[in-house]
Amino acid sequence: MEKINVAEKFTLFNDYWSPQIAGELNGQQVKLVKFKGPFTWHHHENEDELFYVVKGSFDMEFRDRTVTLNEGEFIVVPRGIEHRPNAKEEVHVLLFEPATTLNTGNVENDFTKKELGRL
Amino acid sequence: MEKINVAEKFTLFNDYWSPQIAGELNGQQVKLVKFKGPFTWHHHENEDELFYVVKGSFDMEFRDRTVTLNEGEFIVVPRGIEHRPNAKEEVHVLLFEPATTLNTGNVENDFTKKELGRL
Repeated sequence: MEKINVAEKFTLFNDYWSPQIAGELNGQQVKLVKFKGPFTWHHHENEDELFYVVKGSFDMEFRDRTVTLNEGEFIVVPRGIEHRPNAKEEVHVLLFEPATTLNTGNVENDFTKKELGRL
Repeated sequence: MEKINVAEKFTLFNDYWSPQIAGELNGQQVKLVKFKGPFTWHHHENEDELFYVVKGSFDMEFRDRTVTLNEGEFIVVPRGIEHRPNAKEEVHVLLFEPATTLNTGNVENDFTKKELGRL
């Protein structure tokens, strides 16, 4: 039951697209991740995902539109909805999602991370 | 599937200890709440709770110690653990917890909010 300083935790890793577990509750996890560039199009069959921008900004691309998320903003992407995060510059994002969530959802490729670090 | 600007949402209500629903996913809710002063001692039988400080700071009191949470920090309070938030000055907090969570947990008193607003 220690407090977590989010900015400090972001200094502990540098890899992009590599979510790190920062907290756990009710079968859900808080993950911290750095985005840069375009990710891979994917969806999650059974999980809704929350993206909260801690620092920077990025575009959440959907097939029919794009939502630009800035610092202090979040979006919930419901299960089944195809999406692709795309960051022109490095951005620090807090994820809230079920512990079962795979970062690339229904897709498996070089972006896929099955074993996550813990901060 | 709209983005939520957290700081903007905090301008929409003023009551202390009155959580407002700002998002929902996987049976969990994101709630925004303003604390000022001491809350009531309580615990939650079946829910872990996450407190993330958006602005300001507060003390999370436990029976055996106190953790001071500052802006950009969070803590997870596991189910069953007695706690009491206590804020010397107004603080803006984001909660992440199951939709079933009652703010005063096992206690019912003037602080109890059964019907929450939606932002």
